Amino acid sequence: MRRQFRLMPHRRFVGDLPTPALLLDRDVLERNLAAMAAKARALGVALRPHAKTHKCPEIGRLQLAAGARGITVATLAEAAAFADAGFDDVTWAFPLVLARLEEVVALARRITFRVTVESAAALEALGAAARRSGVEVHAWLEVDSGHHRSGVDPEAPAALDLARRLAEARGVVFDGLLTHAGQSYHARSREERAAVAERERAAMVAFAGRLERSGVRVRGVSVGSTPAMSAVRSLEGVTEVRPGNYAFYDYMQLAAGVCAGDDCAVTVLTSVVSHQAGADHVVVDAGALALSKDPGPDDPALRRGFGPVLRGLAGHELERALAVRGMSQEHGMVGGERAEEVARLAVGDRLRILPNHSCLTVAMFDEYQVVRGEEVVDRWPIRRTR
Amino acid sequence: MRRQFRLMPHRRFVGDLPTPALLLDRDVLERNLAAMAAKARALGVALRPHAKTHKCPEIGRLQLAAGARGITVATLAEAAAFADAGFDDVTWAFPLVLARLEEVVALARRITFRVTVESAAALEALGAAARRSGVEVHAWLEVDSGHHRSGVDPEAPAALDLARRLAEARGVVFDGLLTHAGQSYHARSREERAAVAERERAAMVAFAGRLERSGVRVRGVSVGSTPAMSAVRSLEGVTEVRPGNYAFYDYMQLAAGVCAGDDCAVTVLTSVVSHQAGADHVVVDAGALALSKDPGPDDPALRRGFGPVLRGLAGHELERALAVRGMSQEHGMVGGERAEEVARLAVGDRLRILPNHSCLTVAMFDEYQVVRGEEVVDRWPIRRTR
Repeated sequence: MRRQFRLMPHRRFVGDLPTPALLLDRDVLERNLAAMAAKARALGVALRPHAKTHKCPEIGRLQLAAGARGITVATLAEAAAFADAGFDDVTWAFPLVLARLEEVVALARRITFRVTVESAAALEALGAAARRSGVEVHAWLEVDSGHHRSGVDPEAPAALDLARRLAEARGVVFDGLLTHAGQSYHARSREERAAVAERERAAMVAFAGRLERSGVRVRGVSVGSTPAMSAVRSLEGVTEVRPGNYAFYDYMQLAAGVCAGDDCAVTVLTSVVSHQAGADHVVVDAGALALSKDPGPDDPALRRGFGPVLRGLAGHELERALAVRGMSQEHGMVGGERAEEVARLAVGDRLRILPNHSCLTVAMFDEYQVVRGEEVVDRWPIRRTR
Repeated sequence: MRRQFRLMPHRRFVGDLPTPALLLDRDVLERNLAAMAAKARALGVALRPHAKTHKCPEIGRLQLAAGARGITVATLAEAAAFADAGFDDVTWAFPLVLARLEEVVALARRITFRVTVESAAALEALGAAARRSGVEVHAWLEVDSGHHRSGVDPEAPAALDLARRLAEARGVVFDGLLTHAGQSYHARSREERAAVAERERAAMVAFAGRLERSGVRVRGVSVGSTPAMSAVRSLEGVTEVRPGNYAFYDYMQLAAGVCAGDDCAVTVLTSVVSHQAGADHVVVDAGALALSKDPGPDDPALRRGFGPVLRGLAGHELERALAVRGMSQEHGMVGGERAEEVARLAVGDRLRILPNHSCLTVAMFDEYQVVRGEEVVDRWPIRRTR
């Protein structure tokens, strides 16, 4: 498939692409990757980017080239896709799915595969599967550092007990402690994000210290989210970070102040297909199947429907008030606050939409159209199969 | 790919499947297909099912076998996928995308391909492309029968003018009038749905009459949605209907009273992956990437988060109050109204979730696990590529 893309004889321009299409601005992407790699270096931690955002081996390779150490994934299908593409060190940062232990063991034969454990049931099943197959599986202990979604409570005696059992289990290599402070996505200011990041760090380092003092060796402490990384001041005691969204950012991150408009690397190119006389909207060919139904920022004042429209086909500036105001499965309804903003749109016009949530939007497409300005320079497949 | 599935040597049970998986109950599907085919026959109209719901040639063939005349799709990729699978009469019920005329003409060479026009710009571009290529393309005129999303206003003089130009355009075969009364999805009772259906019918038949009286021959009148079809009493003057969701139904249709619980054919099988002490929820491996972020019924009183949990692995009955209460990209948070409903769930348990919106959920998967009761009898690929 890769070869076929390379053989395409002609470069095209954004204005010539079929729609809907997923555009990836290569210059912005490379800037984002370099900036996060530099930040991790400055903070003295390894970077293990979350590939759930892009699902794309080409981008994973750019991240490794920029200094990342291994990658993170959210599903076993992503892990397999990256292993197939030659990635040999992958963390599956999701509570172990007991129904898929056979596949876990098969992957652990091929690559350094690191899974996530946060219950005695998962530890027992993993240990038994590893010993049965004679292969060693790496495992992180997932810790709840305040998100309260999954992970052990680091203050509870049971957490210490589970860590000890993980460290002692035959067939399992205990990698250390892993957490995701997902509440950083709901923080409303840089100060709040910095506070989330510091609480995440402090909880992890304190727990690691208790474990070490009780004789359990903690090889690694893994934290991270894009919003927390945007504001964190110290990562003392942490060994690696796992942000993902920073490769692309999106409208949610822009609205929250995590990034600037020209840091957003992924947009959806769409066509106006209907503009009826008197209608206060135009219809575009980007609905839920292109943008996802992610509602965007928590704060209603910051919401721009299902994604704001960008000005022109090359820029990064938002139109004053034009956005995808509503959608159905394949239809997007683009409206403006003033009638004249809609009035100038005609059937056949192309628009660029900044998605609310780039990770979910990417998951709706089979490939990126890689662009520099208005020029299409490449196509990269998205491994979205599950 | 098909062959590979057929060669799978062993049947399995739902309780043995890897998760997340998309389950399709074949008995329920066949009953739904037969019931809608019988209803269309009784109403004296042809049935052209909307394949956007299932994206699956196997199901399209079952629909044709049950008496359907051709199929409907929502994207050009769906049209191409069904043409590749041998379907020779396909309507693309979406306003023509001018950026894709080359592909339209290529498809029209291979099959009877019917597109949708609702603007002078689209008519001109289509006619020019057809004449340039020497191929005839069929076209419906899309009419707005009250949904106010796209389509010409049938009361406006411009609509009559566009119909006449469509009927006279060289290279274009005018198939007649097409509409989708999508407002039927927001009707709150059978009476409201019946009223929507009757207004849809009346508007279309009146416009067709005006066209005929002014000398424009109207070959067909195409209407339809699943909610409207559930309540419609007469389709006099209509020639075909295009419901889609009826193949599967979903929680939205159930909550609206369009179907019963045991009419719902598609569910998501998921595993409990986390149940921390003291948590008011468990985490399952079905989040936005499995269920979509469709928020469900308009009416807040009817909402059940991102989908209710079914009782047991074979049944169709909803658990009293257990549902996916929240989600992130790969995580679903299942909670109940009473603590004991959550307390009995353990890591490794499998649950079946009834999706809010089956069409969007199906679009997240690569294949159906076709089941009869708890037995897995087949796997059918989903052509979700765009």
